[in-house]
Amino acid sequence: MTVRIALLNPNTTDAFTARLGEACRAIASPDTVVVARAPAVGTPSVECHADEAVATIGLMQLAREEEALGTDAYVIACFGDTGIDAVREIASGPVVGMTEAALQAATTVAAFFSIVTLPPRTIVQAERVVRYLGLSHRCRRIRAIDVLVDDCIALDETLLTAMIVESRKALDEDGAEAIVLGCAGLSALVGPMTQALGVPVIDGVGVALKIAEGLVAAGLRTSKHCSWATPPRHSVP
Amino acid sequence: MTVRIALLNPNTTDAFTARLGEACRAIASPDTVVVARAPAVGTPSVECHADEAVATIGLMQLAREEEALGTDAYVIACFGDTGIDAVREIASGPVVGMTEAALQAATTVAAFFSIVTLPPRTIVQAERVVRYLGLSHRCRRIRAIDVLVDDCIALDETLLTAMIVESRKALDEDGAEAIVLGCAGLSALVGPMTQALGVPVIDGVGVALKIAEGLVAAGLRTSKHCSWATPPRHSVP
Amino acid sequence: MTVRIALLNPNTTDAFTARLGEACRAIASPDTVVVARAPAVGTPSVECHADEAVATIGLMQLAREEEALGTDAYVIACFGDTGIDAVREIASGPVVGMTEAALQAATTVAAFFSIVTLPPRTIVQAERVVRYLGLSHRCRRIRAIDVLVDDCIALDETLLTAMIVESRKALDEDGAEAIVLGCAGLSALVGPMTQALGVPVIDGVGVALKIAEGLVAAGLRTSKHCSWATPPRHSVP
Amino acid sequence: MTVRIALLNPNTTDAFTARLGEACRAIASPDTVVVARAPAVGTPSVECHADEAVATIGLMQLAREEEALGTDAYVIACFGDTGIDAVREIASGPVVGMTEAALQAATTVAAFFSIVTLPPRTIVQAERVVRYLGLSHRCRRIRAIDVLVDDCIALDETLLTAMIVESRKALDEDGAEAIVLGCAGLSALVGPMTQALGVPVIDGVGVALKIAEGLVAAGLRTSKHCSWATPPRHSVP
Amino acid sequence: MTVRIALLNPNTTDAFTARLGEACRAIASPDTVVVARAPAVGTPSVECHADEAVATIGLMQLAREEEALGTDAYVIACFGDTGIDAVREIASGPVVGMTEAALQAATTVAAFFSIVTLPPRTIVQAERVVRYLGLSHRCRRIRAIDVLVDDCIALDETLLTAMIVESRKALDEDGAEAIVLGCAGLSALVGPMTQALGVPVIDGVGVALKIAEGLVAAGLRTSKHCSWATPPRHSVP
Amino acid sequence: MTVRIALLNPNTTDAFTARLGEACRAIASPDTVVVARAPAVGTPSVECHADEAVATIGLMQLAREEEALGTDAYVIACFGDTGIDAVREIASGPVVGMTEAALQAATTVAAFFSIVTLPPRTIVQAERVVRYLGLSHRCRRIRAIDVLVDDCIALDETLLTAMIVESRKALDEDGAEAIVLGCAGLSALVGPMTQALGVPVIDGVGVALKIAEGLVAAGLRTSKHCSWATPPRHSVP
Repeated sequence: MTVRIALLNPNTTDAFTARLGEACRAIASPDTVVVARAPAVGTPSVECHADEAVATIGLMQLAREEEALGTDAYVIACFGDTGIDAVREIASGPVVGMTEAALQAATTVAAFFSIVTLPPRTIVQAERVVRYLGLSHRCRRIRAIDVLVDDCIALDETLLTAMIVESRKALDEDGAEAIVLGCAGLSALVGPMTQALGVPVIDGVGVALKIAEGLVAAGLRTSKHCSWATPPRHSVP
Repeated sequence: MTVRIALLNPNTTDAFTARLGEACRAIASPDTVVVARAPAVGTPSVECHADEAVATIGLMQLAREEEALGTDAYVIACFGDTGIDAVREIASGPVVGMTEAALQAATTVAAFFSIVTLPPRTIVQAERVVRYLGLSHRCRRIRAIDVLVDDCIALDETLLTAMIVESRKALDEDGAEAIVLGCAGLSALVGPMTQALGVPVIDGVGVALKIAEGLVAAGLRTSKHCSWATPPRHSVP
Repeated sequence: MTVRIALLNPNTTDAFTARLGEACRAIASPDTVVVARAPAVGTPSVECHADEAVATIGLMQLAREEEALGTDAYVIACFGDTGIDAVREIASGPVVGMTEAALQAATTVAAFFSIVTLPPRTIVQAERVVRYLGLSHRCRRIRAIDVLVDDCIALDETLLTAMIVESRKALDEDGAEAIVLGCAGLSALVGPMTQALGVPVIDGVGVALKIAEGLVAAGLRTSKHCSWATPPRHSVP
Repeated sequence: MTVRIALLNPNTTDAFTARLGEACRAIASPDTVVVARAPAVGTPSVECHADEAVATIGLMQLAREEEALGTDAYVIACFGDTGIDAVREIASGPVVGMTEAALQAATTVAAFFSIVTLPPRTIVQAERVVRYLGLSHRCRRIRAIDVLVDDCIALDETLLTAMIVESRKALDEDGAEAIVLGCAGLSALVGPMTQALGVPVIDGVGVALKIAEGLVAAGLRTSKHCSWATPPRHSVP
Repeated sequence: MTVRIALLNPNTTDAFTARLGEACRAIASPDTVVVARAPAVGTPSVECHADEAVATIGLMQLAREEEALGTDAYVIACFGDTGIDAVREIASGPVVGMTEAALQAATTVAAFFSIVTLPPRTIVQAERVVRYLGLSHRCRRIRAIDVLVDDCIALDETLLTAMIVESRKALDEDGAEAIVLGCAGLSALVGPMTQALGVPVIDGVGVALKIAEGLVAAGLRTSKHCSWATPPRHSVP
Repeated sequence: MTVRIALLNPNTTDAFTARLGEACRAIASPDTVVVARAPAVGTPSVECHADEAVATIGLMQLAREEEALGTDAYVIACFGDTGIDAVREIASGPVVGMTEAALQAATTVAAFFSIVTLPPRTIVQAERVVRYLGLSHRCRRIRAIDVLVDDCIALDETLLTAMIVESRKALDEDGAEAIVLGCAGLSALVGPMTQALGVPVIDGVGVALKIAEGLVAAGLRTSKHCSWATPPRHSVP
């Protein structure tokens, strides 16, 4: 019996959506069908609260379409977990955020970790998730490199170097013992960064997919009791 | 010199918008022009995360229009402070949430307080604001009565009684010393509830308006350094 | 390529070990080999700190044996996650505690949850894990029924009824939206309890197995940088 | 109808009292009568807990005199909010501390802020207020320059430069997005510091006055239920 | 070599001062000279913030006198630890608050405890100390009986019964495992309450005396680096 | 009447055990009999979680032997308070950890402190105790020097210099006002470090002994209600 997992990319940049889908399919279970989707209209990257608002509308629309198809679980593939609680209200199955997944994995493989995100203005979003999960005492610091999300697409040497330099500071100055990558679509960096740093480097998208598979296998679905109950009809635009 | 304050009602229910405007004008300074506005399209009430997402889009549109008019400050007139950080990115002047304002006023007039909100599924939104401001140790409990926002419009005796009964429990069982009203548009209840309970009953909308006036008078504007900087153009739909 | 996951039962009760193995094999991926093991000598159940101390020695011995066999990941199958950090020092692969896994799953499928554990004296252990993960604001309350671990083996109607009664209180009085089962080996109760309560009921053992599979698939291993580095030789008795 | 607001300066330095009064009158509403007062005997500056104890006696005496005059609200004009809860017990109207007001304003105009106070030994008092309001997660750091309160009276170039240098560190090293001035009577620095730094610089005294006006307009008074009830007679020396 | 410990009773009720001295002498080391003192003028009991302010002035005067006599350590013998940080600035030796001592002892002999204090309006002071020491997670609840401090002097059967009834609720409803007595001068209740309840009942005064002796024996003195440095001269009235 | 206090050294290094005993006897009350003991088999030093597990078994055995002898109280003489809750379950009298004692003493003599421990991998254990006592807001930072526990035995000039250099950073960079020594058996450094630094330097072993004496004098014993009740028989190997 196949399991359909919708990988929701909150931004409209096709290169990202495709890359996310590939990264997940590479580690998905044989029975899992990974559907990578992005909103038809929205924002090409999510770098501020206004972007998040716009992207959430698209994510809700995608979730409603997926519900009609009987989708089993969702992954929100953007650091900050854009619109995750709105999607949880719409979804029947579990909704796993890549940020929450990365942070939870980090606590499992390391006593302390730091996040290296980009650009600096998104530190506030990362901090929101850290606090939502109560992990301020395990997350040593949220660091950022001064690169725009768009400029990550190339995944070039400059980006890799900047990430490694900042991560080394996290190990040496913060007391971090693992690094959480603060942007989706960087899974190609995991290998070289792990090699260079010698500690776990965590890409939340892949971990989120596996957790989503796991929760489905364990028979868990989103609680519809109170906070994340199905929204009253009028809120669906 | 007049000060223009935009009172943003996140829902589309005209009766609420009008009532909020009246309540604020009654206590505004003579130099303040209160403009009460609501999105043209959106949700008739904000009772869940999906509602918040929809409403935020409308609030952003209103904020952009107001910026073009040189508006001095904003009040978000919905418990939960719908979309406040997105509006802060767009706004030049201060943006005051009715929830944040109510909680801050509560800490000034009482050592401990409880919130009485509605309906129960919005407890999670109230808790989000309490934690965003770090007030879990001052907010004794978030209580809810089982009434929909729509059913508040009438402001009838049943609503008043339910609010008083729940507030009495807050005083007797929680150790609360003031009550925060967990919904906009209930300012008419402040008088009878204060009479019945003998403790401060706080309507955040009015307090938010006065704080907004105060921040403008003190010359403060929203910081554009990092987290709430003006969004990159692409995020404006 | 098969993945070997060692399911470590800290107590010496064979019936528990067998039951845990079965429950996990039922949801394991086809490529996963689940090896359920318990210490040869130790304590028949883990109900206090002294029990935990004794059980940890056994778990460390098992982990050393498994390391020699190239085991890919570990699950600690006891509520309280007995000895987990000591095992993490010995292990190369990820070590997932059933408690941590249950709590993380709970935050994914519910805004708030309560734990129902047994017997009452183990509340302190559950609280230790909740605080280690920083989840005091999401875990509404830790409840306990007055039953010994040994008396769970029968999984009879009395146990089920007691668990349902206590869980109902969690939903009605605490504001919980999901229930975490506070003891390993209760997976047979998940079905009837979910049926009775209408909210997610979470058995950490199964979830832990799936997370362990996921972390292996994502290529993550325990950080050997600092806190969980391999112990100096002398500490191995 | 006029509103009488007593601006209580806890120290006995007349130059400070006069300056505070002027700064507040410049932004007060036309209907507000600002009465700036200081104890007849006490301490010339408040720089330690012993100073606070002495100053509190004077503040209580002033508050009792003001109560007899029907004063509508109070502002405590000293960083650390000297004796604020004792004054709240005596007062009928709201009592607004300049520190609490500054911190609340800071959370409204910036996601994160730092405090720059003086001298270093008062950091502990600033931290007390930050924790009383629960804002440790929003206040990035409390910095201090090595200048005595007395030496602030001159408001000279040296002081300005020291404040700007320390504030720049707050922006660059702490991730602050606004600066809270940690001493009363520095409102003349707000202009040049804002100019130099490009972020909101917050003088709590002015903000406190405006919040006090606002709470009066909103009809709020200090809760007399329990913690801040009128003291039993014997405690009035 | 004798050790002089000044037992500072913040209130002026001689019966209390005498009783505190006797209770401490009964458990003091042979080399300890216990000097029980109270301010000449002040408040007969400490039940609110205004009382605390008045009492602190008296405590500071006593501390200055004791410093001139070479006193080795101090105990603040009032629940809430009236004026403790002001006294610490004046003192060379350690200053131990009965509340802090009681809470620290409670964490040593019990995983969780509750406080039973009086009257209800002092709950806020107890909570201040609990938070100052960071013990909100170990202190299950602060309960109060509706009795004035003055009415404790008699130590009669009614008081004992009320304390036992409230403490039983703490054990049964809060999950407390020890009881902290929230008022000085109740040491005579320790015996009968321990007998009735079967858990540790902690009188902070005695514990504080013993901790003070211990810190002196260990050669520790109050840090004069920064926060608790000797106050500048002007603050001594 | 003599009081027997068992000083439990979790490691098997005789030089440490002897040194600890001497240091404690030097400050013990005349009536106190200090019995310094170490496990017959175990680990020569405690530097990781695996070490702690091994050492705890030995401590439990010692505690059971001491209980049979009517021992009045216990001190756990290892930074991290190895196995303290397991010992508390076995003990009738109070069990005082040197880490808990040091932290509590630090809050009494200083507003803020830092810990200087060794080697770096034990920072996680120190942090566990800091959080167990809720002192993250008072402990400015946990620093470590890169020295193994074994290398402390010599107590030579190199060690002293390293400790002073790191402690100076704590005072200058962290805002610490006292230093907690993060290893047992360093009491000989207290004198020279205090001399060099001019702030309290706290050796937890001595303080723990005096607190243990104090709790015995105050008649307190470990609560046997729930969390630390005597373990069921089967857990005693």
